[in-house]
Amino acid sequence: MLTLNVLDQNEIAPESLVRQSLEQHAALLERCKQGQARYEDSLGWLCVDEWAGEKQLAKAEQLAASIRKTAEVFVIIGVGGSNNAARAVIEAIRPANGVEIVYAGNTLSAYALNDMLKTLDGKEVYINCIAKNFETLEPGTSFRVLRQYLVRRYGKEKAAKRILCTGTQGSSLERLCVREGYAFIQFPGNIGGRFTALSYVHLVPMAVAGIDIGALTKGALEMERTLKAQPAQDNLALRYAVLRNLYFQKGYKVELLSAFEPRLAWFFKWWEQLFAESEGKDAQGLLPITGEYTEQLHSLGQFVQDGTHLMFETFLDVKERGENDSLILGGTDVDDGFDYLDGKDFWEINKASFDATREAHSQVMPCLTLEVGALDAYHYGQLFYFFAFACYLSGEILGVNPFDQPGVEAYKNRLFAALGK
Amino acid sequence: MLTLNVLDQNEIAPESLVRQSLEQHAALLERCKQGQARYEDSLGWLCVDEWAGEKQLAKAEQLAASIRKTAEVFVIIGVGGSNNAARAVIEAIRPANGVEIVYAGNTLSAYALNDMLKTLDGKEVYINCIAKNFETLEPGTSFRVLRQYLVRRYGKEKAAKRILCTGTQGSSLERLCVREGYAFIQFPGNIGGRFTALSYVHLVPMAVAGIDIGALTKGALEMERTLKAQPAQDNLALRYAVLRNLYFQKGYKVELLSAFEPRLAWFFKWWEQLFAESEGKDAQGLLPITGEYTEQLHSLGQFVQDGTHLMFETFLDVKERGENDSLILGGTDVDDGFDYLDGKDFWEINKASFDATREAHSQVMPCLTLEVGALDAYHYGQLFYFFAFACYLSGEILGVNPFDQPGVEAYKNRLFAALGK
Repeated sequence: MLTLNVLDQNEIAPESLVRQSLEQHAALLERCKQGQARYEDSLGWLCVDEWAGEKQLAKAEQLAASIRKTAEVFVIIGVGGSNNAARAVIEAIRPANGVEIVYAGNTLSAYALNDMLKTLDGKEVYINCIAKNFETLEPGTSFRVLRQYLVRRYGKEKAAKRILCTGTQGSSLERLCVREGYAFIQFPGNIGGRFTALSYVHLVPMAVAGIDIGALTKGALEMERTLKAQPAQDNLALRYAVLRNLYFQKGYKVELLSAFEPRLAWFFKWWEQLFAESEGKDAQGLLPITGEYTEQLHSLGQFVQDGTHLMFETFLDVKERGENDSLILGGTDVDDGFDYLDGKDFWEINKASFDATREAHSQVMPCLTLEVGALDAYHYGQLFYFFAFACYLSGEILGVNPFDQPGVEAYKNRLFAALGK
Repeated sequence: MLTLNVLDQNEIAPESLVRQSLEQHAALLERCKQGQARYEDSLGWLCVDEWAGEKQLAKAEQLAASIRKTAEVFVIIGVGGSNNAARAVIEAIRPANGVEIVYAGNTLSAYALNDMLKTLDGKEVYINCIAKNFETLEPGTSFRVLRQYLVRRYGKEKAAKRILCTGTQGSSLERLCVREGYAFIQFPGNIGGRFTALSYVHLVPMAVAGIDIGALTKGALEMERTLKAQPAQDNLALRYAVLRNLYFQKGYKVELLSAFEPRLAWFFKWWEQLFAESEGKDAQGLLPITGEYTEQLHSLGQFVQDGTHLMFETFLDVKERGENDSLILGGTDVDDGFDYLDGKDFWEINKASFDATREAHSQVMPCLTLEVGALDAYHYGQLFYFFAFACYLSGEILGVNPFDQPGVEAYKNRLFAALGK
């Protein structure tokens, strides 16, 4: 299970204050465990079994197996909540026996789309258009571009067999699939995009890529049971939610999530969306930013240590290494000045760098550490559920609706008007 | 030339206040144009000709041509200021006839290093270790890993002919090169890493990748002449520096640089380092963050519009399209609900999205727009010089030393101690 460690040398939120706040939100925790009625349209993720139970897992695996028979490349057409979770896991794990995954529907840049199309030539292509609300421009336009690309390559009839759509029941996307004979699976009607990690939306593309989605959902389910069993004083998600709100009240307006493994880069994107969209409203919310260390210690590091006091930091630390995580630095071949590292293990050097960084940063800001067991499917399942539940609690403590995103209408309405919709 | 447009509907910094501040800093501008004596060790970039004049260009091109004869893949071993500028240009332009570029020396992750090594097998490899101060762990350890890899593949003698180092004169890296027979070129002694875009440090790898470094330096030189000729009231860099400082004083603590072209992602990393390291000190400085639109409109967008009021936004807008920037959305093949976009040009849809976004965001925060002519080598040269000069001015106005980075010592000292250095 995850653990949470706090370094708060300047006592921004002393343990007594934290415990008081945990107590104060004990009733909220119980309501959240049950799911409040006012969010009933958005809580489909709260019970992992609802959208990632045995039946859905079996169907996702079966669907993926049939796609994997023919596909050499699988294009995920989706943006934000419709691609971030799958991408986070796929790009971190990249199974050797997986189908190549390409991303579309996340840009309006002609340059990026042309680049994407070039990667498909000469390969057997299968596409998956994922859109809860099939009005968003990026997936809508990319879907058309790719659909027409398939028709050019395979003819209309054969192209139709290479198209899978993920949409809500009764949506215009479903009607399109019925008319044109495309395969269709269900986007949960009672989950907003950023909370759909544990559903067909992401399980199907992950399975196509060769991810062990059984392990992923097992991790999520165990996290669900743990968090629903823990009382307020011991609840890991509530503690994290309480801490971030206390820091926010004390003037820390930015949360910096950082890690020493670059393969977490796409998970960071998922996390940024989760918190930015859930809490960034009513002129409130912590600005979520991320640090890819050690590289960004050489760019952002100076600011973190000495710049404007804006942020606290949450380190995501990985306990156990995977099979690709070992590399020994050979002995000195020539006198290069690094003889003190002869024969050392990069995993250990990287850990030393984490320790030194946390110690230095904790001089000037509170530093949390979330320790995760390993970077495999099982633990990604834990992380998805943990952060989703913590985000729900955190938004409630902040006093905002964690499940809507009214602010994105501001540019969308202007854009639709400009384009003559 | 670049242009700068301001949308400041809530009059956070009215034009009268801006003009007053420009006037107030007119003498500073003149001193900066000349270069102050107290920064003489750090101003080697101020005259483009000093490190990117005809002689250096010719040498960089000659060196690159000889490497391009044998290399299929060229590994840039460097971190922060030793790779960000080259990477920004190479990853955005990726010339078709270029040598493949791989990055190392920017991580301590065994996973990332193992991945990097796998990409080299079966290809003709050439490496370039770039380090001003050859004490930094990432380039030091990656250099050893890659040197030993080359020796295994080619034998010691032939490996030595595939190694190029970029270091300061008199450095331990230079001595190593002399002893071992590696090629050596000069890292400017009078420029800090993040300001070295226009020097061998970056020009050589860019030229190896097939970038037109003559056009790049021409763009920089023309920007230098422009900024040094413009008086305070008309000076583009001073205006940008003044605006960001006025917003900072008014409580905007974060600058969000955004663009609608994903290929600017690596340029963003360069920009973040430039400003984070130059201004993030003495508990001061704008936190520089970046937005890759339209993708991040679907994650960060809600926060920008409705979240805690922390940020102002600077849009980097591209005026002219390049050859890969055109794609027409075909007419409707099936009724997909996007018929209002039939036959539209993605470049125009993307521009409409920019306009709508800026209009929406400008309701709640000041929005600057820097319009750059195109995303080619010439204009990257303009951008590098513009931001470097503006950053110098901005740090001076803020009252910090723009050229040091004392804060990074805090973790480095702890790390060196832990590793027994």
